[in-house]
Amino acid sequence: MTVVMDAAALQEFLQRDFGQVAGDFVVERVGAAGVTLRLRVAERHLRPGGTVSGPAMFGLADVAMYLAILSRIGPVALAVTTNCAIDFMRKPRAGVDLLAEARLLKLGRSLAVGDVLLFSEGGADPVARASLTYAIPPK
Amino acid sequence: MTVVMDAAALQEFLQRDFGQVAGDFVVERVGAAGVTLRLRVAERHLRPGGTVSGPAMFGLADVAMYLAILSRIGPVALAVTTNCAIDFMRKPRAGVDLLAEARLLKLGRSLAVGDVLLFSEGGADPVARASLTYAIPPK
Amino acid sequence: MTVVMDAAALQEFLQRDFGQVAGDFVVERVGAAGVTLRLRVAERHLRPGGTVSGPAMFGLADVAMYLAILSRIGPVALAVTTNCAIDFMRKPRAGVDLLAEARLLKLGRSLAVGDVLLFSEGGADPVARASLTYAIPPK
Amino acid sequence: MTVVMDAAALQEFLQRDFGQVAGDFVVERVGAAGVTLRLRVAERHLRPGGTVSGPAMFGLADVAMYLAILSRIGPVALAVTTNCAIDFMRKPRAGVDLLAEARLLKLGRSLAVGDVLLFSEGGADPVARASLTYAIPPK
Repeated sequence: MTVVMDAAALQEFLQRDFGQVAGDFVVERVGAAGVTLRLRVAERHLRPGGTVSGPAMFGLADVAMYLAILSRIGPVALAVTTNCAIDFMRKPRAGVDLLAEARLLKLGRSLAVGDVLLFSEGGADPVARASLTYAIPPK
Repeated sequence: MTVVMDAAALQEFLQRDFGQVAGDFVVERVGAAGVTLRLRVAERHLRPGGTVSGPAMFGLADVAMYLAILSRIGPVALAVTTNCAIDFMRKPRAGVDLLAEARLLKLGRSLAVGDVLLFSEGGADPVARASLTYAIPPK
Repeated sequence: MTVVMDAAALQEFLQRDFGQVAGDFVVERVGAAGVTLRLRVAERHLRPGGTVSGPAMFGLADVAMYLAILSRIGPVALAVTTNCAIDFMRKPRAGVDLLAEARLLKLGRSLAVGDVLLFSEGGADPVARASLTYAIPPK
Repeated sequence: MTVVMDAAALQEFLQRDFGQVAGDFVVERVGAAGVTLRLRVAERHLRPGGTVSGPAMFGLADVAMYLAILSRIGPVALAVTTNCAIDFMRKPRAGVDLLAEARLLKLGRSLAVGDVLLFSEGGADPVARASLTYAIPPK
């Protein structure tokens, strides 16, 4: 599949259409396999004890997959998440960002499917994994 | 299963241990089957267009199931979410709260499993459904 | 939603289009909420130790949801499963059938979503739960 | 993680403990990342039309993950599947075997988590993906 939006284009898209949360995310890399997205962990993403909250991890996986899809079909899409299965496997490290590696497994006419691994920056083992389905509206 | 924490006790628990988000949630009902929890939808839960965001719906389902477990085992637990599968089925209505109906299906020694339906207040059809697993630490 | 195929019509459909496995299943009830389907547990559904195998439980949940959809849209559909999340919660009892209670939560133009509880016959607690999404082809 | 059972040892284990289905499966490879398992597709795995059935694909993913766990902890375990999320993405090709590539993401004291990609032999794109959790009993 051809990449039609690079990291800068995706970042700009976030800024324009998701201004409310765009400051949370940095598009690190866009490649043939997918997208790497950083969550700049801030106070509002934390649970008591200093660990990143479940909703913040879910949101990171969701946005990473969304951007992986847009990187192939461009900014016109109104794709919506229809399904997510997420496993929380390890406690994220305190005080570091999270990195999501999203991989697109299917890009069909009406459904896109992919999976995401989440890592604490500098950590070798994933803290969570997610698989997501997006519905892509007819043109 | 016997209910050991009622709505007031769960609300107080939220306030004390999850002060950061406690104001978002109102425990509406606690019964033999489970818990009904309200998300007081505010600006910060919305996506562009006025619909409730995916992470906010995930968070509501997660907290509802957590409280359903605590209502049976008491406030001592350090249960953590290990898995969630969520289906987003309809767009939540703008301008109304969300209600989660959590149902406990299994409460084992080490794992608890349940599911949750999310409704826009006043709506007959669920906007989302989720199933969640919690790991319960050994005493 | 209106029921357009009753239990007898669904059973006949199974016989005609899924002859290979139709003998495994009995449509017990069709109602406004969904379908109850029986798996006539036989030697080939068992794991060592006499418990029903995971694939047999998955298959029961899958067929039950499929029939719940057909009960509303009729036998013309070529619906296919796109996603299933299943939790195995208790060991099925040896020597009894399994019953699936499928509930349709959304029947859209292109996607149908529902969930299923599986019980050992005569048991009060579900042995498994599943949620499934079907893609419905355009007419 | 160290591999404690190689392909031959896993194949022998299948033969001894799962004789009923062992003939369906061939352990192709065991490595640091996980296990590759072949489903020798036969008449009984097919749906009308000649495509591999959902339960057969579920079963392949489940056994592949099971063997990936045993390759690290040895044949003593009584691990049981507690959860599976599976996405069916493409129709398997008729007349060829399926290959499962199982990857272990977490091997904890009580829970193991991993994911699996399923391919039609000779196909570049996965036909399905699954993530699975196994409960590992205390020693």
